[in-house]
Amino acid sequence: MPQSEIDILTNHLSKLPGIGKRSAKRILLHLIKNKETLMNPLGESIKRTAATIKECENCGNIDDISPCKICKDIKRDQTRICVVEEVSDLWAIERSNMFKGLYHVLGGTLSAIDGVGPEDLNIVNLSLKAANNNVKELIMATNATVDGQTTAHYIAEIMSDYNVTISRIAHGIPIGGELDYLDDGTLNAAFNARKPL
Amino acid sequence: MPQSEIDILTNHLSKLPGIGKRSAKRILLHLIKNKETLMNPLGESIKRTAATIKECENCGNIDDISPCKICKDIKRDQTRICVVEEVSDLWAIERSNMFKGLYHVLGGTLSAIDGVGPEDLNIVNLSLKAANNNVKELIMATNATVDGQTTAHYIAEIMSDYNVTISRIAHGIPIGGELDYLDDGTLNAAFNARKPL
Repeated sequence: MPQSEIDILTNHLSKLPGIGKRSAKRILLHLIKNKETLMNPLGESIKRTAATIKECENCGNIDDISPCKICKDIKRDQTRICVVEEVSDLWAIERSNMFKGLYHVLGGTLSAIDGVGPEDLNIVNLSLKAANNNVKELIMATNATVDGQTTAHYIAEIMSDYNVTISRIAHGIPIGGELDYLDDGTLNAAFNARKPL
Repeated sequence: MPQSEIDILTNHLSKLPGIGKRSAKRILLHLIKNKETLMNPLGESIKRTAATIKECENCGNIDDISPCKICKDIKRDQTRICVVEEVSDLWAIERSNMFKGLYHVLGGTLSAIDGVGPEDLNIVNLSLKAANNNVKELIMATNATVDGQTTAHYIAEIMSDYNVTISRIAHGIPIGGELDYLDDGTLNAAFNARKPL
């Protein structure tokens, strides 16, 4: 029996992260109820975005243009580069609106289990940037996971040949966090990184 | 500042039910990573579905064709009509695969608070069906809410003029449900509807 358009669309929707068969049907009905205001504009927007989007040749961010708006913004601090694993991390930092330098997206982490080596990450490009005399600091903002930390240490070692400061964002108790609910790893990190008050 | 395509698409995605700003960004990145296998097919599928989908003139179901596949299926029991509030209820019953009759979608419930009267629901059409001698039973499958039950009783009263049996799906303890976790309303309904064993 040939699949109906509805089945095909439900199937596509259920492949989106965090969406199962049931939510897909719910979204589908919502779309159909709002055909002119949401369904058609969404379809158009997806196709237009797919056609225009590109990866920034400089930092690996995703944007309509390459180099991306962040790399092109001359008001940003060109001397500091924040190194992140994925574009989603870059967007999370941008959302917080407190970092005004540039970014570098690695495209993952080193991982022995998944067989990801240095050559699979965007590290060569980072070396070129570090060799540039303008760049003064590389801020490692990889995730606080084993792979994320391994990657940060690996990069710090490679970059020690260049005249740049390597820093890492702090690990500790999240602001608003209660000790009772924290895991041992976080508590341990927070104690080891204690500072004079 | 003009919005970028990415912002427009994130905005559209965050209007879907159950999806906020953060999930929208996550979905967006997932789409971009799977441009050929998911993003383009999804955009196409949304546009194609928007163009082909229609409401069944007979029962109110949503399908590529009108009358819909259920109404057209001559193997289904034409003497029993299940009355539901919304298309999502119809799909839920179809998913369970145990009802083999036809459906009738009301398009909502009577509601004094929201100002929904009988003329706002698809009740006239239901009367025409009840007047048809082929139809023997109307099964009320409205939700077990105050509005759903009011609607079921209202329809039962109107249809009492016709030569049809009016029934209502049973309320009680869900299969697999534990008494300890049930609300008083459900327990009450289950006790009142007890049957000899």
